[in-house]
Amino acid sequence: MRVYEINDHIKKYSFGEVFQTDTVVIKGKEIKEQPLEFLKKTLNNQFLYILDDEDIVYGLGENVRGINKRGWIYESFCTDEFSHLPNKKSLYGAHNFLIVYGKETFGIFLDYPGRAIFDVDYSKRNELKITTEDDNLDIYIIKGKNLNNIVQNFRNLIGESYVPPKWAFGYQQCRWSYKNEEEVEEVLDNFKANNIPIDCIYLDIDYMEDFKDFTVNKKNFPNFKSFIEKMKKKGVRLIPIIDAGVKIEEGYDVYEEGIKNKYFCVDENNNPFVAAVWPGVVHFPDFLNKDARLWFGKKYKYLIDQGIEGFWNDMNEPAIFYSKKGLEKAFKKIEEAKGKNLGIYDFFDIKDTFPRLANSMEDYRSFYHNVDGTLVRHDKVHNLYGYNMTRAASEGFDYIDDNKRFLLFSRASMIGMHRYGGIWTGDNTSSFEHLELNMKMMPSLNMCGFMYIGADTAGFGDNTTDDLAIRWSQFSIFTPLFRNHSALGTRRQEPYAFDGKATEIIKNSIEIRYALIPYIYSEFMKATINNDMYFKPMTFEYNDSFVNRIEDQLIVGDSIMIAPIYKQNAKGRYIYLPEEMLLWKAKKYHSEEFEIINKGHSYIDVAIDEIPIFIRKDKILVLEKPAENIDSMKNNEINIVAFLDKESEYKLYDDDGKSKDYKKGKYNEINIKVINKNNDIEVKIDVKGNTSINKINVTAITLDGKRILKEVILN
Amino acid sequence: MRVYEINDHIKKYSFGEVFQTDTVVIKGKEIKEQPLEFLKKTLNNQFLYILDDEDIVYGLGENVRGINKRGWIYESFCTDEFSHLPNKKSLYGAHNFLIVYGKETFGIFLDYPGRAIFDVDYSKRNELKITTEDDNLDIYIIKGKNLNNIVQNFRNLIGESYVPPKWAFGYQQCRWSYKNEEEVEEVLDNFKANNIPIDCIYLDIDYMEDFKDFTVNKKNFPNFKSFIEKMKKKGVRLIPIIDAGVKIEEGYDVYEEGIKNKYFCVDENNNPFVAAVWPGVVHFPDFLNKDARLWFGKKYKYLIDQGIEGFWNDMNEPAIFYSKKGLEKAFKKIEEAKGKNLGIYDFFDIKDTFPRLANSMEDYRSFYHNVDGTLVRHDKVHNLYGYNMTRAASEGFDYIDDNKRFLLFSRASMIGMHRYGGIWTGDNTSSFEHLELNMKMMPSLNMCGFMYIGADTAGFGDNTTDDLAIRWSQFSIFTPLFRNHSALGTRRQEPYAFDGKATEIIKNSIEIRYALIPYIYSEFMKATINNDMYFKPMTFEYNDSFVNRIEDQLIVGDSIMIAPIYKQNAKGRYIYLPEEMLLWKAKKYHSEEFEIINKGHSYIDVAIDEIPIFIRKDKILVLEKPAENIDSMKNNEINIVAFLDKESEYKLYDDDGKSKDYKKGKYNEINIKVINKNNDIEVKIDVKGNTSINKINVTAITLDGKRILKEVILN
Repeated sequence: MRVYEINDHIKKYSFGEVFQTDTVVIKGKEIKEQPLEFLKKTLNNQFLYILDDEDIVYGLGENVRGINKRGWIYESFCTDEFSHLPNKKSLYGAHNFLIVYGKETFGIFLDYPGRAIFDVDYSKRNELKITTEDDNLDIYIIKGKNLNNIVQNFRNLIGESYVPPKWAFGYQQCRWSYKNEEEVEEVLDNFKANNIPIDCIYLDIDYMEDFKDFTVNKKNFPNFKSFIEKMKKKGVRLIPIIDAGVKIEEGYDVYEEGIKNKYFCVDENNNPFVAAVWPGVVHFPDFLNKDARLWFGKKYKYLIDQGIEGFWNDMNEPAIFYSKKGLEKAFKKIEEAKGKNLGIYDFFDIKDTFPRLANSMEDYRSFYHNVDGTLVRHDKVHNLYGYNMTRAASEGFDYIDDNKRFLLFSRASMIGMHRYGGIWTGDNTSSFEHLELNMKMMPSLNMCGFMYIGADTAGFGDNTTDDLAIRWSQFSIFTPLFRNHSALGTRRQEPYAFDGKATEIIKNSIEIRYALIPYIYSEFMKATINNDMYFKPMTFEYNDSFVNRIEDQLIVGDSIMIAPIYKQNAKGRYIYLPEEMLLWKAKKYHSEEFEIINKGHSYIDVAIDEIPIFIRKDKILVLEKPAENIDSMKNNEINIVAFLDKESEYKLYDDDGKSKDYKKGKYNEINIKVINKNNDIEVKIDVKGNTSINKINVTAITLDGKRILKEVILN
Repeated sequence: MRVYEINDHIKKYSFGEVFQTDTVVIKGKEIKEQPLEFLKKTLNNQFLYILDDEDIVYGLGENVRGINKRGWIYESFCTDEFSHLPNKKSLYGAHNFLIVYGKETFGIFLDYPGRAIFDVDYSKRNELKITTEDDNLDIYIIKGKNLNNIVQNFRNLIGESYVPPKWAFGYQQCRWSYKNEEEVEEVLDNFKANNIPIDCIYLDIDYMEDFKDFTVNKKNFPNFKSFIEKMKKKGVRLIPIIDAGVKIEEGYDVYEEGIKNKYFCVDENNNPFVAAVWPGVVHFPDFLNKDARLWFGKKYKYLIDQGIEGFWNDMNEPAIFYSKKGLEKAFKKIEEAKGKNLGIYDFFDIKDTFPRLANSMEDYRSFYHNVDGTLVRHDKVHNLYGYNMTRAASEGFDYIDDNKRFLLFSRASMIGMHRYGGIWTGDNTSSFEHLELNMKMMPSLNMCGFMYIGADTAGFGDNTTDDLAIRWSQFSIFTPLFRNHSALGTRRQEPYAFDGKATEIIKNSIEIRYALIPYIYSEFMKATINNDMYFKPMTFEYNDSFVNRIEDQLIVGDSIMIAPIYKQNAKGRYIYLPEEMLLWKAKKYHSEEFEIINKGHSYIDVAIDEIPIFIRKDKILVLEKPAENIDSMKNNEINIVAFLDKESEYKLYDDDGKSKDYKKGKYNEINIKVINKNNDIEVKIDVKGNTSINKINVTAITLDGKRILKEVILN
């Protein structure tokens, strides 16, 4: 073991020959060996910590079950897992960061690209056990003065998170698939006819020619460039999907170049590995090979040159439907069984033969990456694949325009990828259970550095219901990525696909999202720049023993708390407030009914058209009149609501929304102070940088329910 | 349409040529045609009702989603559906009874043995739409003075529910499978070593010889009769499974007799239909053929003669793994695909070829029943199959001993079967979601006449966790059927399979179950005899607008309300009380800490070892000291807890627990009255019939929290 001091808060303990994942951005310096803190190394690949009965375990990013991870066993091994049930151990991401909170409070980060298992009080009472497949890993112990600070220290270790353009905070519509220009236009027309704001329409796999990356189906999109231009004029950007696998097809440039330059993963005989995904048989670009990565990244230019400004990277666990070898074996097995007198277990074996081909460990163990000339077997570095596909894209974008922010998010991920793109949480289903899971995943992902995140609103697989679509939209208005997406063959779930009442409610929710943009963008950017969290469990903000139990209320940004409705037919819900808060049951962006809810437990009525938003004491919520898309928002007049005890303060961040200049300090901040002066308020405004905002309408509600209005004109 | 008046509350509307399901036991008399009440017939096979926004829809028995069925589409078509997810439309049962509650309140029963679809405010807002596959059906409209009364009137229409022997209310242990005598004994020894009460151990499919019904594997159970006897002496009864399919094997008596007498379902060429289930290829007994039904029913004698007193009927939807024809086609299809250049959708088709064979409509449409000489295609009467398998068993039992109560329950069911056996809710999974579903299904099943019911405690499929096993056991102590069951390959989940703490808690829960036996049995029997419900949604007892929203508290019997914990890591929960109640957080059967909870909303702490039981005002809970099994309970001294305002009254029912003499009025009742006399209580006891109870220890808690104790000796 070698020990490194990263800084005052973090120590690294290094075992064996560590594969460089590039997740950590601070090297630290080696110090003399000292025992591992908190954890006990019990076997070669195993670390143990004994939890106290009352300890909570946070973290593990995109995963099943609660915010408190106790009581289950999780595996970090990026998996194309469409069912997301609580019996699963692994979803699409590998997020090896967790925090033990309680008797002792500390963070653990396992920098390891292979399969890691986190048994959190599941196999044995109170045991937190981390197991890896081999002994080559770095383990970091992260301390801090509180939960938020531990996250900040960890996030500092792994570097600043990806920031999308501001228009990516608008509403986005997807479906597998809008197949041609007419269908895309029809979708947009429906939004316009219903006056529903929208910023992006997605192109799922069918926009391509035979599912080939960096091609466009010419029959369905005959004038792609001008179509993109036309749609942009109408106010929406098109976001195409890019899959990991490259179709094997002679004459197809990506394939030909990959073969010629040996940019594909290889099998044990050094031939390009053959698997099948959407395009049929493919090779996998070797994203761990720097040259291949750069090559693939530059390929995005083909679409960017036509006006595309955002992408979603998919199937990059990598998902494998079958490998060539696997399929041959399967056919052989079935052939041998034919005509035989099958016992029932033989039949089950036959039945499962083809389904078992997908994402098999046998396949993951049978291909290799070329890492600086050395062949590395895929399964040992599996979790790096989606990460480095997204890094490829990001590096490609930098190559094309290094100061432009592109929209980019991925299905597979590992910590480290958070610097290059966001995440959507993969192929969920239309169920209230998955809305609940969506809510619980969000803060865990923030802990791990993933800031631009969201789930398929209303559910991807299966048929949604109108109340699910409503309740999910009402939650997703708070997620940075707010995208409605549904699978082939399911009920249509665009906001206008429901009856008048549901459509109206979803429309109102989307308008509230746009009204919240000044707040959401400001909070997202501040959290990202400061390595802070945008979604927080209650415990991260309140030192109150009851809040530790809460799994279904979240702090969103600094000013508000939300308590989503996630049960069918629900007309209200219970909440717990650690202090009094101002409840806005938002029905429309301009509805202005507020209610003070006392500290403690309450049941609140929440009608189907209401979104409960709680403004915290001495905090400020910022709103603006919505527009048909982000670019059309005037950004000159804002409304603020202060729940005022003594003094509410808010720092409203904004920037150009397009460039990376914010990294050089080029952004503006309006510091707003609302001070309680008995029966009046004083409003102090301090502007840093250039802002287009020239008027602030202040609504202050005092603890005794008094409403004081004020208009402030900025010079 | 022909209209019948059944009685003052019920009218029958008869369409087409109705297949006699024998579900209804009251014929009624034809009256002159009059329009269908409440419903509108919109198409030939379609009935419509427009719901009010606030209406609740109860019923549909064993189904997914909430107690309020609004917002989804359900199909009555008994299905071997092991995943039970909210996206499913059909589980194992077909329970076509529902109640609309609200603006208008009435019950609907659809007497129809084929596929029926209930679209409850799903496809179109506020539309309740019932669709059948053809126009031959009876529809009943049931009125009553309130929800309970509508259920009573419906239950009166369909006849008295099945009653098991009293020992079937003890704890029961199952696993797929305890394979031989040694393993069964080991299970029992573990219970005894841990002093955990138990009444039954189950034998899953592996006890048979090659999965053949009415055979016993002689290698694993060489002395079955004496082994049953030995186990009975040790205090447990063995409960074997019986599957629907009869193995095709020359020389096997059941097969030979079935062939000889044409007792099997036939294909379109009048040859016995061949499908495969556990035994490999089988024929299906034709339970709709009266002679075949009686023949099969008498076969249970083989096991009864060896000392068996209870059975569970499985695979009787009937589940089909594949049919002979289907399998041949599948192999052919795969063969043709081999070596071809597969498109990805071709591959998916290949992949699904074998899995698609299970329970295919093509198969259900390709076999026939002989109903009084007429061939009836199976799919048209599908829901009658499990019903009539269980009826076969019940009629067989009557033939063997018509006054003995046997334990009998089934996986597939239709209303009508409730007279012959109970239900377990099939192959659920070890998830908190399924514990929640279990809770919600119970009152809906009671509405449909199924009284002896329960789910696989701790979950059948997937690995359980210790807190799930605890929380589920804490709920199941209230279900008439309390059985822990788990699948092959999953983590062991017998109470002793966890660590000391979890085992202790589950043991305490089981002891509390036995302590509650006087109450549970009394309430079960009274509800069954009076066509009342044992599990009720809150709305059925309280006229309070808030209770309509409650989906996670249940009235159990007349005296108590329960509020189960069904979330991982939960340390408490919210409750709503429509009136003040006395909370007993039961840790051990003899723990005696009570707390009065006020009317309204509360959050209650519930530690992992506590079961919250709420005693209603002026009601009485009855307890007895637990024993190692039901037969060993002394039944001479009981403890009662009264939550006393003015006067608490309870009618304690008991009978011999073995015979059907209760139907002739041979049972005993102790009428207990506890009267508040300021600082004292008066206890009045009135005994009808012979009771072994000679002492009653009374604990009365008054509204102001005073505890008054009294002992009453019975003459």
